Amino acid sequence: MTSPLQTPLFQTLCVIGPGHIGSSILRRARLEPALATRLVTTDAIPAVRETARCIGLADEVPDTMAEAVRDADCVILCVPVGAMGSVAAEVLPAMKPGAILSDVGSTKGSIVADITPHLRPDIPFVPAHPMAGREFSGPESGFAELFDDRWCLLTPLPGMPDEATQRIATMWALMGARTRAMDIAHHDKVCAMVSHLPHLIAFTICGTADDLADESRSEVLDFAASGFRDFTRIAGSNPVMWRDIFLNNREALLEMLARFTEDAQAMARAIRWGDADFIVDRIERGRRIRKTLIENRQA
Amino acid sequence: MTSPLQTPLFQTLCVIGPGHIGSSILRRARLEPALATRLVTTDAIPAVRETARCIGLADEVPDTMAEAVRDADCVILCVPVGAMGSVAAEVLPAMKPGAILSDVGSTKGSIVADITPHLRPDIPFVPAHPMAGREFSGPESGFAELFDDRWCLLTPLPGMPDEATQRIATMWALMGARTRAMDIAHHDKVCAMVSHLPHLIAFTICGTADDLADESRSEVLDFAASGFRDFTRIAGSNPVMWRDIFLNNREALLEMLARFTEDAQAMARAIRWGDADFIVDRIERGRRIRKTLIENRQA
Repeated sequence: MTSPLQTPLFQTLCVIGPGHIGSSILRRARLEPALATRLVTTDAIPAVRETARCIGLADEVPDTMAEAVRDADCVILCVPVGAMGSVAAEVLPAMKPGAILSDVGSTKGSIVADITPHLRPDIPFVPAHPMAGREFSGPESGFAELFDDRWCLLTPLPGMPDEATQRIATMWALMGARTRAMDIAHHDKVCAMVSHLPHLIAFTICGTADDLADESRSEVLDFAASGFRDFTRIAGSNPVMWRDIFLNNREALLEMLARFTEDAQAMARAIRWGDADFIVDRIERGRRIRKTLIENRQA
Repeated sequence: MTSPLQTPLFQTLCVIGPGHIGSSILRRARLEPALATRLVTTDAIPAVRETARCIGLADEVPDTMAEAVRDADCVILCVPVGAMGSVAAEVLPAMKPGAILSDVGSTKGSIVADITPHLRPDIPFVPAHPMAGREFSGPESGFAELFDDRWCLLTPLPGMPDEATQRIATMWALMGARTRAMDIAHHDKVCAMVSHLPHLIAFTICGTADDLADESRSEVLDFAASGFRDFTRIAGSNPVMWRDIFLNNREALLEMLARFTEDAQAMARAIRWGDADFIVDRIERGRRIRKTLIENRQA
């Protein structure tokens, strides 16, 4: 009874918020007996709970968060980052001693600040961020392979037991992800650059196109070349989730946007004055990054 | 011998520059007997000609442009937009009377201005722009289905015979594309918005990422989330081609970049001051455009 295959990592795993990420965790856990024996989920929205029951995402879908977390050995918060604090305040008093609290949000500084005031000394909190989102949302959009070969970043807090961090890292490895630990501020800066800024730009350029005169606007849509199509794929993402991310990673995101704007202005100046070498140099850099990404198996 | 299936649109079709677009035209023409009986191609670069011969892109790959166009009933220029003028100057004197000249460049204003001084009264010129590029380049990257269901925009010139425009439109229909005619200035504005600006932004953000400190830079690549990956796909495009497009659609591109920058600054301000409604409104607009694109079968 002590082999790793017979003793699952958690007896009961609870996902709060079975959206795109949360439902993908549950789907993967279903296929992975080493992860958990029993799956529980719930959501603040009744229709989401109903869908979770209909499609059989978990063994149990209680109506309240307190019921959902009561017997859980691990509770993962998969709610918009702006809701992390209030949801933590609701679930923490109901959790059993020694259970682990974790999350999947992409603005670790704000989440740690919002959850810390509600923490209990007997509940270790391990912040985590699987970098695997797509433009879909809702319980029906998840899939078991979402995390395969993707990174899950852990930002362990000082004073928390190593064993809890290790269990969350093992959980993500069983989900198919590669894990790495990093400092919270550094995490937020890197994610502002590789994820939050590209989303801000994609949402913005769609608005810019929408502002064109009526005739042009319809043609923007008719003739969308491959460049614009990729941007609108990103722009199809969940509004509440991204509003919260932007507002909760404000400083890092504004810094990266300022850097980008300076660089775009330099490009505009090169185009206005015909500086062909500068333009080619910028394009070549993009190609180098692309090449490195492909080599790193992330493209 | 007069049925459409037995009389091809052109006896000899010549593609100058068998790169990604040019080689895709040739590959499709090979599969489409109604298009042309004989295919000819050449390129200014000896290695490209050699590749075209090795992979059998055409029936004939002469060393000079004059030889290539001599017997052609239609010559399509598939070179970077900055080279259109000089290539037209070289091929036009060698073309046979009544043959049609066309091109595939995406900056129609500059191309028409560059080619017009070299035109002959007995050679109709029909500017065309298939909106089907991908991030690949070179003769081996093309494929016969590239133009399926994509738009090919025609910007017919005053005084040119309608019959020539009609033949080029028929050619693109046989390539699988949908065609539409529009005014040159309007074409350049729409393409600045849906194609040139997204590419400028993608190249720029890769440079911005590359400028981060060494440690962060490696992590930018390691942890590239889906947002950044899409941008680098665009950024993998051909530098000379895009340098030429930026420099040759300068006014329209700078106007669209200025509009985008204003909108990005408005988003930055909303993030700084916590204007959640403004942010959600912008994201919702992106989703609406995405939805319309999907309905238009372009996504």
